[in-house]
Amino acid sequence: MAEECTFCRIIQRVEEGVVVYEDDEHLILMDKHPYNPGHNLVIPKKHYKTLLEMPKSEAGKLFEKVWLIAKATVKALDADGIHIGQNNGRAARQVIDHVHVHIIPRFYEDEQNGRWPSRKTIPLEESRKLADMIRQQILHFKEEC
Amino acid sequence: MAEECTFCRIIQRVEEGVVVYEDDEHLILMDKHPYNPGHNLVIPKKHYKTLLEMPKSEAGKLFEKVWLIAKATVKALDADGIHIGQNNGRAARQVIDHVHVHIIPRFYEDEQNGRWPSRKTIPLEESRKLADMIRQQILHFKEEC
Repeated sequence: MAEECTFCRIIQRVEEGVVVYEDDEHLILMDKHPYNPGHNLVIPKKHYKTLLEMPKSEAGKLFEKVWLIAKATVKALDADGIHIGQNNGRAARQVIDHVHVHIIPRFYEDEQNGRWPSRKTIPLEESRKLADMIRQQILHFKEEC
Repeated sequence: MAEECTFCRIIQRVEEGVVVYEDDEHLILMDKHPYNPGHNLVIPKKHYKTLLEMPKSEAGKLFEKVWLIAKATVKALDADGIHIGQNNGRAARQVIDHVHVHIIPRFYEDEQNGRWPSRKTIPLEESRKLADMIRQQILHFKEEC
Protein backbone atom coordinates (compact mmCIF):
# COMPACT_ATOMS: atom_id res chain seq x y z
CA MET A 1 0.00 0.00 0.00
CA ALA A 2 1.16 3.52 -0.80
CA GLU A 3 0.02 5.83 2.00
CA GLU A 4 -0.72 8.85 -0.17
CA CYS A 5 -2.50 6.87 -2.91
CA THR A 6 -6.24 7.50 -3.21
CA PHE A 7 -6.98 3.99 -4.46
CA CYS A 8 -4.85 2.33 -1.75
CA ARG A 9 -6.75 4.41 0.81
CA ILE A 10 -10.12 3.32 -0.61
CA ILE A 11 -8.95 -0.33 -0.67
CA GLN A 12 -7.97 0.04 3.01
CA ARG A 13 -11.29 1.81 3.75
CA VAL A 14 -9.58 4.92 5.15
CA GLU A 15 -11.15 6.92 2.31
CA GLU A 16 -14.68 6.57 0.94
CA GLY A 17 -15.66 5.32 -2.47
CA VAL A 18 -18.61 3.52 -4.03
CA VAL A 19 -17.31 -0.05 -4.14
CA VAL A 20 -19.03 -2.35 -6.62
CA TYR A 21 -17.25 -5.56 -5.75
CA GLU A 22 -13.97 -6.92 -4.44
CA ASP A 23 -12.06 -10.15 -4.05
CA ASP A 24 -8.53 -10.94 -2.88
CA GLU A 25 -6.85 -9.39 -5.90
CA HIS A 26 -9.05 -6.64 -7.27
CA LEU A 27 -11.45 -3.90 -6.28
CA ILE A 28 -14.16 -2.54 -8.56
CA LEU A 29 -15.04 1.09 -7.91
CA MET A 30 -17.58 3.47 -9.43
CA ASP A 31 -15.80 6.35 -11.17
CA LYS A 32 -16.44 9.59 -9.26
CA HIS A 33 -16.94 11.59 -12.48
CA PRO A 34 -18.27 9.06 -14.99
CA TYR A 35 -18.39 9.61 -18.75
CA ASN A 36 -21.64 7.64 -18.67
CA PRO A 37 -23.74 6.11 -15.87
CA GLY A 38 -22.18 2.79 -14.86
CA HIS A 39 -18.58 3.86 -15.64
CA ASN A 40 -16.43 1.89 -13.22
CA LEU A 41 -12.78 1.08 -12.57
CA VAL A 42 -11.07 -2.27 -12.17
CA ILE A 43 -8.14 -1.85 -9.76
CA PRO A 44 -5.51 -4.35 -8.62
CA LYS A 45 -5.21 -4.23 -4.83
CA LYS A 46 -1.43 -4.35 -5.00
CA HIS A 47 0.01 -0.91 -5.69
CA TYR A 48 1.64 -0.46 -9.09
CA LYS A 49 1.89 2.91 -10.77
CA THR A 50 1.38 1.68 -14.34
CA LEU A 51 0.45 -1.51 -16.16
CA LEU A 52 4.02 -1.74 -17.43
CA GLU A 53 5.32 -2.13 -13.88
CA MET A 54 3.10 -5.15 -13.17
CA PRO A 55 4.35 -8.68 -13.73
CA LYS A 56 2.93 -10.14 -16.95
CA SER A 57 0.79 -12.74 -15.19
CA GLU A 58 -0.82 -10.10 -12.95
CA ALA A 59 -1.60 -7.96 -16.00
CA GLY A 60 -3.30 -10.99 -17.57
CA LYS A 61 -5.32 -11.67 -14.42
CA LEU A 62 -6.34 -8.02 -14.20
CA PHE A 63 -7.81 -8.19 -17.70
CA GLU A 64 -9.56 -11.49 -17.03
CA LYS A 65 -11.36 -9.53 -14.34
CA VAL A 66 -11.93 -6.65 -16.78
CA TRP A 67 -13.55 -9.14 -19.17
CA LEU A 68 -15.95 -10.25 -16.42
CA ILE A 69 -16.78 -6.72 -15.28
CA ALA A 70 -17.32 -5.52 -18.86
CA LYS A 71 -19.84 -8.31 -19.46
CA ALA A 72 -21.59 -7.49 -16.20
CA THR A 73 -21.65 -3.76 -16.93
CA VAL A 74 -23.14 -4.20 -20.42
CA LYS A 75 -25.85 -6.42 -18.99
CA ALA A 76 -26.61 -4.19 -15.99
CA LEU A 77 -26.85 -0.99 -18.06
CA ASP A 78 -28.28 -2.62 -21.21
CA ALA A 79 -25.46 -0.78 -23.00
CA ASP A 80 -25.08 -0.66 -26.79
CA GLY A 81 -21.30 -0.99 -26.54
CA ILE A 82 -18.45 -0.83 -24.08
CA HIS A 83 -15.13 0.97 -24.06
CA ILE A 84 -12.17 -0.34 -22.11
CA GLY A 85 -9.42 2.22 -21.51
CA GLN A 86 -6.21 2.25 -19.55
CA ASN A 87 -3.89 5.26 -19.25
CA ASN A 88 -0.25 5.10 -18.25
CA GLY A 89 1.59 8.31 -17.37
CA ARG A 90 0.52 11.97 -17.18
CA ALA A 91 1.03 12.33 -20.94
CA ALA A 92 -1.68 9.67 -21.36
CA ARG A 93 -3.96 11.52 -18.88
CA GLN A 94 -3.33 9.16 -15.94
CA VAL A 95 -4.45 11.16 -12.89
CA ILE A 96 -4.18 8.64 -10.02
CA ASP A 97 -0.85 6.82 -9.94
CA HIS A 98 -2.24 3.37 -9.25
CA VAL A 99 -3.10 1.09 -12.20
CA HIS A 100 -6.81 1.20 -13.06
CA VAL A 101 -8.85 0.15 -16.06
CA HIS A 102 -11.86 2.22 -17.14
CA ILE A 103 -14.99 0.28 -18.07
CA ILE A 104 -17.24 2.75 -19.87
CA PRO A 105 -20.70 1.74 -21.11
CA ARG A 106 -21.51 3.42 -24.42
CA PHE A 107 -24.89 4.23 -25.97
CA TYR A 108 -25.81 5.12 -29.55
CA GLU A 109 -27.02 8.54 -28.45
CA ASP A 110 -24.25 9.53 -26.03
CA GLU A 111 -22.13 11.64 -28.40
CA GLN A 112 -22.78 15.25 -29.36
CA ASN A 113 -21.23 16.65 -32.53
CA GLY A 114 -19.16 13.49 -32.87
CA ARG A 115 -17.43 14.09 -29.52
CA TRP A 116 -17.13 11.63 -26.67
CA PRO A 117 -19.54 12.15 -23.77
CA SER A 118 -18.23 14.55 -21.07
CA ARG A 119 -17.51 13.60 -17.48
CA LYS A 120 -20.56 14.03 -15.23
CA THR A 121 -21.31 14.43 -11.56
CA ILE A 122 -23.82 11.82 -10.42
CA PRO A 123 -25.60 11.90 -7.04
CA LEU A 124 -24.11 9.41 -4.55
CA GLU A 125 -27.43 7.58 -4.22
CA GLU A 126 -27.62 6.99 -7.97
CA SER A 127 -24.03 5.83 -8.04
CA ARG A 128 -24.77 3.30 -5.27
CA LYS A 129 -27.84 2.06 -7.14
CA LEU A 130 -25.78 1.53 -10.30
CA ALA A 131 -23.11 -0.28 -8.25
CA ASP A 132 -25.79 -2.65 -6.91
CA MET A 133 -27.06 -3.36 -10.42
CA ILE A 134 -23.54 -4.14 -11.68
CA ARG A 135 -22.72 -6.25 -8.59
CA GLN A 136 -25.77 -8.45 -9.22
CA GLN A 137 -24.60 -9.14 -12.75
CA ILE A 138 -21.02 -9.82 -11.60
CA LEU A 139 -22.33 -12.48 -9.21
CA HIS A 140 -24.46 -13.92 -12.00
CA PHE A 141 -21.58 -14.09 -14.53
CA LYS A 142 -19.12 -15.35 -11.93
CA GLU A 143 -21.22 -18.48 -11.52
CA GLU A 144 -21.67 -18.88 -15.25
CA CYS A 145 -18.03 -18.49 -16.35
CA MET B 1 -11.45 -16.94 -40.25
CA ALA B 2 -14.29 -14.72 -41.40
CA GLU B 3 -13.98 -14.20 -45.16
CA GLU B 4 -15.14 -10.60 -45.22
CA CYS B 5 -13.11 -9.50 -42.18
CA THR B 6 -10.22 -7.10 -42.92
CA PHE B 7 -8.10 -8.40 -40.04
CA CYS B 8 -8.68 -12.06 -40.93
CA ARG B 9 -7.65 -11.20 -44.50
CA ILE B 10 -4.46 -9.51 -43.27
CA ILE B 11 -3.72 -12.47 -40.97
CA GLN B 12 -4.13 -14.78 -44.00
CA ARG B 13 -2.00 -12.42 -46.15
CA VAL B 14 -4.75 -11.96 -48.73
CA GLU B 15 -4.82 -8.26 -47.83
CA GLU B 16 -1.84 -6.01 -47.11
CA GLY B 17 -0.97 -4.45 -43.80
CA VAL B 18 2.21 -3.34 -42.00
CA VAL B 19 2.77 -6.29 -39.68
CA VAL B 20 4.96 -5.59 -36.66
CA TYR B 21 5.13 -9.09 -35.26
CA GLU B 22 3.18 -12.33 -35.03
CA ASP B 23 3.16 -15.64 -33.19
CA ASP B 24 0.69 -18.53 -33.11
CA GLU B 25 -1.99 -16.61 -31.27
CA HIS B 26 -1.66 -12.91 -32.07
CA LEU B 27 -0.76 -10.49 -34.82
CA ILE B 28 0.55 -6.98 -34.19
CA LEU B 29 -0.35 -4.50 -36.91
CA MET B 30 0.47 -0.82 -37.44
CA ASP B 31 -2.76 1.24 -37.37
CA LYS B 32 -3.44 2.64 -40.86
CA HIS B 33 -4.51 6.02 -39.48
CA PRO B 34 -2.57 6.39 -36.22
CA TYR B 35 -3.33 8.95 -33.51
CA ASN B 36 0.43 9.16 -33.00
CA PRO B 37 3.42 7.55 -34.74
CA GLY B 38 3.86 4.02 -33.41
CA HIS B 39 0.12 3.44 -32.81
CA ASN B 40 -0.38 -0.29 -33.30
CA LEU B 41 -3.03 -2.95 -32.77
CA VAL B 42 -2.83 -6.25 -30.91
CA ILE B 43 -5.17 -8.73 -32.62
CA PRO B 44 -6.03 -12.32 -31.70
CA LYS B 45 -5.72 -14.54 -34.80
CA LYS B 46 -8.95 -16.32 -33.96
CA HIS B 47 -11.97 -14.34 -35.12
CA TYR B 48 -14.14 -12.90 -32.37
CA LYS B 49 -16.25 -9.82 -32.85
CA THR B 50 -15.81 -8.36 -29.37
CA LEU B 51 -13.77 -9.02 -26.24
CA LEU B 52 -16.93 -10.19 -24.51
CA GLU B 53 -17.29 -13.09 -26.95
CA MET B 54 -13.80 -14.43 -26.17
CA PRO B 55 -13.27 -17.10 -23.51
CA LYS B 56 -11.86 -15.55 -20.33
CA SER B 57 -8.48 -17.27 -20.61
CA GLU B 58 -8.01 -15.98 -24.17
CA ALA B 59 -8.86 -12.46 -23.05
CA GLY B 60 -6.19 -12.77 -20.36
CA LYS B 61 -3.61 -14.02 -22.85
CA LEU B 62 -4.46 -11.22 -25.26
CA PHE B 63 -3.68 -8.65 -22.58
CA GLU B 64 -0.49 -10.40 -21.52
CA LYS B 65 0.56 -9.73 -25.12
CA VAL B 66 -0.74 -6.15 -24.85
CA TRP B 67 1.47 -5.68 -21.78
CA LEU B 68 4.53 -6.82 -23.77
CA ILE B 69 3.72 -4.72 -26.82
CA ALA B 70 3.03 -1.62 -24.70
CA LYS B 71 6.45 -1.94 -23.05
CA ALA B 72 8.11 -2.39 -26.44
CA THR B 73 6.22 0.55 -27.97
CA VAL B 74 7.13 2.94 -25.14
CA LYS B 75 10.79 1.97 -25.48
CA ALA B 76 10.86 2.13 -29.29
CA LEU B 77 9.19 5.55 -29.45
CA ASP B 78 10.67 6.94 -26.23
CA ALA B 79 7.07 7.81 -25.36
CA ASP B 80 6.06 9.86 -22.29
CA GLY B 81 3.02 7.68 -21.69
CA ILE B 82 0.90 5.02 -23.33
CA HIS B 83 -2.83 4.61 -23.80
CA ILE B 84 -4.44 1.21 -24.15
CA GLY B 85 -7.93 1.25 -25.64
CA GLN B 86 -10.40 -1.38 -26.70
CA ASN B 87 -13.79 -0.66 -28.29
CA ASN B 88 -16.69 -3.08 -28.40
CA GLY B 89 -19.67 -2.34 -30.64
CA ARG B 90 -20.49 0.53 -33.04
CA ALA B 91 -21.71 2.67 -30.12
CA ALA B 92 -18.16 2.42 -28.72
CA ARG B 93 -16.69 3.35 -32.14
CA GLN B 94 -15.63 -0.18 -33.07
CA VAL B 95 -15.11 -0.04 -36.85
CA ILE B 96 -13.67 -3.47 -37.71
CA ASP B 97 -15.65 -6.34 -36.21
CA HIS B 98 -12.68 -8.39 -35.02
CA VAL B 99 -11.31 -7.82 -31.50
CA HIS B 100 -8.32 -5.47 -31.47
CA VAL B 101 -6.54 -3.49 -28.79
CA HIS B 102 -5.13 -0.05 -29.56
CA ILE B 103 -1.65 0.69 -28.23
CA ILE B 104 -1.19 4.45 -28.54
CA PRO B 105 2.06 6.13 -27.53
CA ARG B 106 1.42 9.52 -25.94
CA PHE B 107 3.68 12.57 -25.70
CA TYR B 108 3.45 15.65 -23.46
CA GLU B 109 3.00 17.89 -26.48
CA ASP B 110 0.55 15.84 -28.56
CA GLU B 111 -2.68 17.57 -27.49
CA GLN B 112 -4.04 20.84 -28.87
CA ASN B 113 -6.57 22.82 -26.84
CA GLY B 114 -6.87 19.90 -24.46
CA ARG B 115 -8.10 17.57 -27.21
CA TRP B 116 -6.70 14.16 -28.07
CA PRO B 117 -4.40 14.04 -31.09
CA SER B 118 -6.23 13.49 -34.41
CA ARG B 119 -5.80 10.48 -36.65
CA LYS B 120 -3.00 10.95 -39.21
CA THR B 121 -1.97 9.50 -42.54
CA ILE B 122 1.64 8.32 -42.37
CA PRO B 123 3.69 7.32 -45.47
CA LEU B 124 4.02 3.54 -45.83
CA GLU B 125 7.80 3.72 -45.59
CA GLU B 126 7.65 5.55 -42.25
CA SER B 127 5.10 3.08 -40.94
CA ARG B 128 7.41 0.18 -41.90
CA LYS B 129 10.35 1.89 -40.18
CA LEU B 130 8.31 2.33 -36.99
CA ALA B 131 7.22 -1.32 -37.17
CA ASP B 132 10.90 -2.38 -37.37
CA MET B 133 11.75 -0.27 -34.32
CA ILE B 134 8.89 -1.76 -32.31
CA ARG B 135 9.71 -5.32 -33.47
CA GLN B 136 13.29 -4.97 -32.22
CA GLN B 137 12.03 -3.99 -28.78
CA ILE B 138 9.47 -6.83 -28.74
CA LEU B 139 12.27 -9.33 -29.39
CA HIS B 140 14.34 -7.68 -26.67
CA PHE B 141 11.55 -7.76 -24.05
CA LYS B 142 10.45 -11.26 -25.04
CA GLU B 143 13.84 -12.57 -23.95
CA GLU B 144 13.79 -10.51 -20.78
CA CYS B 145 10.29 -11.41 -19.54
